[in-house]
Amino acid sequence: MIVILKEKNPNPKQLEPLISWLESLDVGTQFTVGARQTIIGLTGDTSVVDIDLIKSMEIVDDVKRVQEPYKKANRKFHADDTVIDVNGVKLGGGQFQMIAGPCSVESREQICLVAQRVKAAGATMLRGGAFKPRTSPYSFQGLQADGLSLLLEAKKLTGLPIVTEIMNISHLPLFEDVDVIQVGARNMQNYDLLKELGRTNKPILLKRGLANTLEELLMSAEYIMSGGNEKVILCERGIRTFETATRNTLDISAIPVLHNKTHLPVIVDPSHAAGIASLVKPLALASTMAGADGLIIEVHNDPPRALCDGAQSLTPEAFDKLAYEVRNVLPLVQKRDG
Amino acid sequence: MIVILKEKNPNPKQLEPLISWLESLDVGTQFTVGARQTIIGLTGDTSVVDIDLIKSMEIVDDVKRVQEPYKKANRKFHADDTVIDVNGVKLGGGQFQMIAGPCSVESREQICLVAQRVKAAGATMLRGGAFKPRTSPYSFQGLQADGLSLLLEAKKLTGLPIVTEIMNISHLPLFEDVDVIQVGARNMQNYDLLKELGRTNKPILLKRGLANTLEELLMSAEYIMSGGNEKVILCERGIRTFETATRNTLDISAIPVLHNKTHLPVIVDPSHAAGIASLVKPLALASTMAGADGLIIEVHNDPPRALCDGAQSLTPEAFDKLAYEVRNVLPLVQKRDG
Amino acid sequence: MIVILKEKNPNPKQLEPLISWLESLDVGTQFTVGARQTIIGLTGDTSVVDIDLIKSMEIVDDVKRVQEPYKKANRKFHADDTVIDVNGVKLGGGQFQMIAGPCSVESREQICLVAQRVKAAGATMLRGGAFKPRTSPYSFQGLQADGLSLLLEAKKLTGLPIVTEIMNISHLPLFEDVDVIQVGARNMQNYDLLKELGRTNKPILLKRGLANTLEELLMSAEYIMSGGNEKVILCERGIRTFETATRNTLDISAIPVLHNKTHLPVIVDPSHAAGIASLVKPLALASTMAGADGLIIEVHNDPPRALCDGAQSLTPEAFDKLAYEVRNVLPLVQKRDG
Amino acid sequence: MIVILKEKNPNPKQLEPLISWLESLDVGTQFTVGARQTIIGLTGDTSVVDIDLIKSMEIVDDVKRVQEPYKKANRKFHADDTVIDVNGVKLGGGQFQMIAGPCSVESREQICLVAQRVKAAGATMLRGGAFKPRTSPYSFQGLQADGLSLLLEAKKLTGLPIVTEIMNISHLPLFEDVDVIQVGARNMQNYDLLKELGRTNKPILLKRGLANTLEELLMSAEYIMSGGNEKVILCERGIRTFETATRNTLDISAIPVLHNKTHLPVIVDPSHAAGIASLVKPLALASTMAGADGLIIEVHNDPPRALCDGAQSLTPEAFDKLAYEVRNVLPLVQKRDG
Repeated sequence: MIVILKEKNPNPKQLEPLISWLESLDVGTQFTVGARQTIIGLTGDTSVVDIDLIKSMEIVDDVKRVQEPYKKANRKFHADDTVIDVNGVKLGGGQFQMIAGPCSVESREQICLVAQRVKAAGATMLRGGAFKPRTSPYSFQGLQADGLSLLLEAKKLTGLPIVTEIMNISHLPLFEDVDVIQVGARNMQNYDLLKELGRTNKPILLKRGLANTLEELLMSAEYIMSGGNEKVILCERGIRTFETATRNTLDISAIPVLHNKTHLPVIVDPSHAAGIASLVKPLALASTMAGADGLIIEVHNDPPRALCDGAQSLTPEAFDKLAYEVRNVLPLVQKRDG
Repeated sequence: MIVILKEKNPNPKQLEPLISWLESLDVGTQFTVGARQTIIGLTGDTSVVDIDLIKSMEIVDDVKRVQEPYKKANRKFHADDTVIDVNGVKLGGGQFQMIAGPCSVESREQICLVAQRVKAAGATMLRGGAFKPRTSPYSFQGLQADGLSLLLEAKKLTGLPIVTEIMNISHLPLFEDVDVIQVGARNMQNYDLLKELGRTNKPILLKRGLANTLEELLMSAEYIMSGGNEKVILCERGIRTFETATRNTLDISAIPVLHNKTHLPVIVDPSHAAGIASLVKPLALASTMAGADGLIIEVHNDPPRALCDGAQSLTPEAFDKLAYEVRNVLPLVQKRDG
Repeated sequence: MIVILKEKNPNPKQLEPLISWLESLDVGTQFTVGARQTIIGLTGDTSVVDIDLIKSMEIVDDVKRVQEPYKKANRKFHADDTVIDVNGVKLGGGQFQMIAGPCSVESREQICLVAQRVKAAGATMLRGGAFKPRTSPYSFQGLQADGLSLLLEAKKLTGLPIVTEIMNISHLPLFEDVDVIQVGARNMQNYDLLKELGRTNKPILLKRGLANTLEELLMSAEYIMSGGNEKVILCERGIRTFETATRNTLDISAIPVLHNKTHLPVIVDPSHAAGIASLVKPLALASTMAGADGLIIEVHNDPPRALCDGAQSLTPEAFDKLAYEVRNVLPLVQKRDG
Repeated sequence: MIVILKEKNPNPKQLEPLISWLESLDVGTQFTVGARQTIIGLTGDTSVVDIDLIKSMEIVDDVKRVQEPYKKANRKFHADDTVIDVNGVKLGGGQFQMIAGPCSVESREQICLVAQRVKAAGATMLRGGAFKPRTSPYSFQGLQADGLSLLLEAKKLTGLPIVTEIMNISHLPLFEDVDVIQVGARNMQNYDLLKELGRTNKPILLKRGLANTLEELLMSAEYIMSGGNEKVILCERGIRTFETATRNTLDISAIPVLHNKTHLPVIVDPSHAAGIASLVKPLALASTMAGADGLIIEVHNDPPRALCDGAQSLTPEAFDKLAYEVRNVLPLVQKRDG
C-alpha cells in the first residue's frame, strides 16, 4: 500500500499518530521524498489496514493499493487451477462442463423431459430454478420446495447433478441433496448468505452482480472461502451498461482476467447476458473460445410458454446444435468435456 | 401494452394462440394495420401479462409497456404524498427530516455523544449501523446485537427515533424496538427480505441499489407494500458509473423523477454517494433544493478513527454547519423541518 | 411509431393540431382506445416525424418507435451482406481479413519491418497511425503527413493496403492514396467529418464511440451512406463501463446484434478494448468465433518502446501465434481468410 | 508517479534500461523494498513520462500516478478562481450568469422574441444553435451561417453576448463576432478543433462528453489552454448511465469536484441533462445550490413546435419563474448575478 501525503514536509503532530498506528499493526514504512509530496510505502501484511481510514486523514492526499485484498481466491498464492468435483463431474483445470435446463421448474413432465434432452445433447449437469428472484411481486415466484423435489426426481432419472439457486439462508436445509448451490447476481453481496454457505461443504456457483467489478466478485468468493468452503465456481452473466440492444452486456474479458487473478473455475451464462435466444449460441461459442471452464444455458421444451425468461431459452433442438458446436471448439482451447 | 408484430399479415396459426391466451387473461385487443407491420394494443389490466413471454413469440417483433408495472407505489392511483409517522416525527408531504449518526455503532460513549450532538444540531432521527455489509470478510462487521442495544440506549437518552440496517431476515426479532428498518443498497433486490418486511408494521428505509433503475426501486417498494406495509421511505444514495472522482454518482434527478412517479417520500444519502466528507455539504444542499424530503448523513466524533467509512463522515462541527445551511434552504422549497 | 396519450379522451383542441400536423407529413393515424389511455398508431413513412417534438406535447404521455431510424444501413431493406473491396482484398460476406500494424508510425524502419512481419503472419492490410488523438496535449501526436508518406512506402514494399485515421476534414487531400480511412471512436459523432467522407469513394472504417449505442453507430454509418458512400466497415472496440480491470469492456454481443440489424461488415479491435497485450489473443479468438468479419490488431516490433499504446501491442512473434490460431477457427464459423 | 515492480529483486538487465531511460528524462527514482515487491517512487516533473509505456514493461506490475496530468487548468498552480469577461459580463469567482435561448435559431422573429424574453427574465447571455449536431442525417441540421447572422441581429437588439456551437474548424471565420464559442459534448475530444480554438482569443464553453471523466474534461481544457487561450468555461451536461428515466444523468457532484481541482468556472446545462422540461427547474436550483457559476438553459417561445429538443425547452413564462427562484438562491451560496 502506498500513502501519498499532501506535502513534502507534513506536520509531525499529524504524521506521528499515523506511523504509530501502522506500527501497532506490524506494518513497516519507507519514505520517498518527492519534489512536492512525500510518499510512504507500507510493507508487510497490509490487508489488515483500512484504506478508507488512512484516506480520511488530513495530511493524506491519496492511498493506493499494491496487493490485492483477497487471499484465498488469489492465484498468486495458489498457482494451480482449482478443479471442482460435483458428484464425479469435474469442472476446471482443463475440464469443461455444460450445465443446462429451464429457468424455472414448472412440472414433473417438463423438468424430466428437459433433463433427458440436455443430457442426450451432452450436458453434464441440470439447472432449474425452484426459488425465483423476480422483479415484480406479481410475477411467478417459482414452485419453491416442490420445485426442489421435482429437480431431485429428474436427477434420479438422468443421473445429472443439479444446480439451483438459494435466496434465503433459512431454506438451506431444503438444499441438502442439491449438488451445486447457486447464488444469484442480486445476492452476490448478501454477505450473511455467503458466510453461511462458507460453512457448508457444497460447491457454490457464484454469479457476478449486475454492477459488480471483478474484484468485488473475488471478494464475495473470499467470503465463502474464508468460512472454510473453497469450492467456488465463478460465473460471468453480463453487466449493466448504457447499451439497450441486449439485456446485459456480456463481459467476455472477464474470463481471461479472472483466470489471471484467481485459480477458481470460471463459467459463463450467455442466456442471461443476452436475454435473446438467437444470441445465445454465438455468445456461448465466443465464451468457450475465450477460455471459459463451462457454460450454463437455459433450455425449455416450449420457450414461448415458459413461466419465466422464455425470451432467452433455447429449444432442445437449438441446444443440440449449440452443444455440438461447442464441443467442436474444445480441442482448439485445450479443454476436455464431460 | 403494445405488441408489434413482425409482419402486416401474421400467420393466423401463430396469431390465434396469442389472442386466445390474452382473452383468457381478460385482456382486450385492438389492431392497427401499418404499412409493413401490424400493432396490437392491449386493453384492460395488463399487469398480469408477462411481457417477456410475448416478446419470445415467433410472430412478435417487440412489446412496449404503456402502464407502469407498480400499482401501490404509483402516484396515478394515490395522488397525495404519503406522510410517514416515525414515533411522532413526520416525514413527507412538506415535512423535512434530517437523520444523522455514525456509519457504525462503536461504543456506548461514541453513539451517545454523536446522538446528543446531532440532536443539538437539529437532526430528528439517529442512524447507526449494528450489522454492517463490508466488501471484505476481513473488515469490521459491526457490533451486531450489542450495537442494537447501544442504539436503544442512545434513543432513551435523546428521544431520537433510530434507523438501522437489517441484513438477514432471521435477525428481525432483534429489531422490535427499532423505529425505522433500513434495507441497504446491496439488498434492494433481496426479495425474501422485502416480503418479510412487508409483513411488519414498521417504516422501511429502502436504499436504491448501486445499479438499479428508478423503476426497479419502485418495484422493490411494491414488494414491501404488496405485503401490507405501505410505510416505505425511498433513498437515493448514488449509482455506479464510469466516473471515478467520486465513490458513486449521486443521481440528483431521481428526486423530481420519483416525486412524479410515486407518492412515497424520497430522501438522499449524500455521504455514501460522495464517499468524501468535503462533498457532503454541497450535495446535501443541492438535494434539499431539488425537493428531497429528508437527508441521511454520516457524522462521527472522530472520523479518522471511525471503524468504517471514516472518509465520508462529518465531524459534529461540520454537521452543525450543514444542518444550519440546510434549514435556511427549506423555506425556498416550501418545506418544514422537525 | 406509437403515440400514447395521457388520457382516454384527450382535449380535442389539443388533439386536432397533432393530427393535422401528422397528416401534413403524410403519416396516417389509427386509434386504440384503452381502459385509461388512448393510443395512436402512426402508419406510413414515420422517419420524417420528430419523436421528441411529439413527446413534448401536453396531451402525450410517451412515444415509442417501431421502425429503426436508419434506412441505408438497415438489413431489412438490403438482405445480403455487403462485401467491401479494398484494392482487391474483400471483407464481409464470409471473407475474413486481419488488419495489423503499429499504433503509431514512428520511422521508416519500424513501419516497414512491422508491415513485413504482419504480412508474413497472414495479415492482409496494414494499420498505422499518422495523426494520433491523445488525451494529453503533452503526449506524442503522431508523425502526421510524414507518417502518411511512410505508410505509403510500406504499402509499396509489401503490397498491403493501408488503413489510417483521419482527425480533421482539412487533411482529406493527404489521404488520397490511403486505402481505408478510419474514423476514431472520439469522432464517431463528428457529423461534419462523416458528411465529408460520405462524398468520397473510399472504404471507411467507423469505430464505435466509447459510450455510443449500436443504434447510434448505425446512425453515424447512415450519415456516411446518405452522402453516397456505402462502403462502411463497422468496428467494435470496447465501451466504457464501471469495470476497471480492462481499459474498456469489449461488447462481444455487438457482433451478432449488428449482423442482425445491418448488412455492413463488422470487425473487432481487441487491442483497444483490452488495453493489455495478454488479453488480445483470447478476445481476438472469441470475436472470430462470435462471427466477426475481421480483426484490427496492434503489433509493434518493440512494444515497451512504442511511442503510444505500447501496453496493448503484440510483438510480431505473439501476432504470428494469434494469426495462426485465428485461422484455425475460421472453418468453424464458415469464414474464408485472405 | 509510483512504479510497482512484480518482484522484490527484479532482473537488473531489465531494471537498468528503465532507470537510465528515466534519468534521460530528468526524473529521479527512490526505491522502497517491500516484503514481496519493490516500489520505485519517481520524483521531479513526471508529466513527461508516458505511463502506458512503463506499464507495458515486463518487470512492472502497475504504475500509479500521484500528480494530475494537467497543469494550466490545475488549481494547485493557480489558487484563485478564473473570472471570464464576456463583453463586460463576468463569469466565475462569485459572479453567476444565466445563459438562455433556443436550442436552434429558427427565424428572426423567434430568436429576437426569445432574446428579449430571456433578457427581461434576467439572462445575461443568449444561446442559440446555428450548426446543430443531430444523431440522424435526416433531422434538421440548423440554419448554419444564416443562423449566426440572426443571432447577431438578436445581439444588436438586446445587447446580450451570444454563445453558439462550432462543429467544424473551417467555420471559424464565421464566428468572428460570436462572444463565446461552444464545443459540444460530441466534440469534447476533437483535439484538432480544441487546438485551433487554443489559438483564438475567445472564451470557450467546453461541454463534458457523455462518457468522459472529469479528468478527461480537464485534459481537453488543457488542450485549449496550452495553445494560449486560458478562457475556458467548463460545462456539466449529464453523463450516460444505465438509468433511462432521464435522457442523461446530471452529475451534480461534478460541480464541487471541479471547483476543487481547477480554477476555471463551472456551469451546468440542466436542459440537456434532463431531456424533459419539467425537470429543468429542480435541476437548475440544485446546481446553483451546489455552487455552479452559471446555468445554460433552453427556452423556446413554442416548445412543441421547436425544430429540435422541444421536449426539454422551457416556455418564456417557465423561464421567468426559474430565473426568479434561482436568483433567490444566490445569496445562500455567496454569489452575485448579472
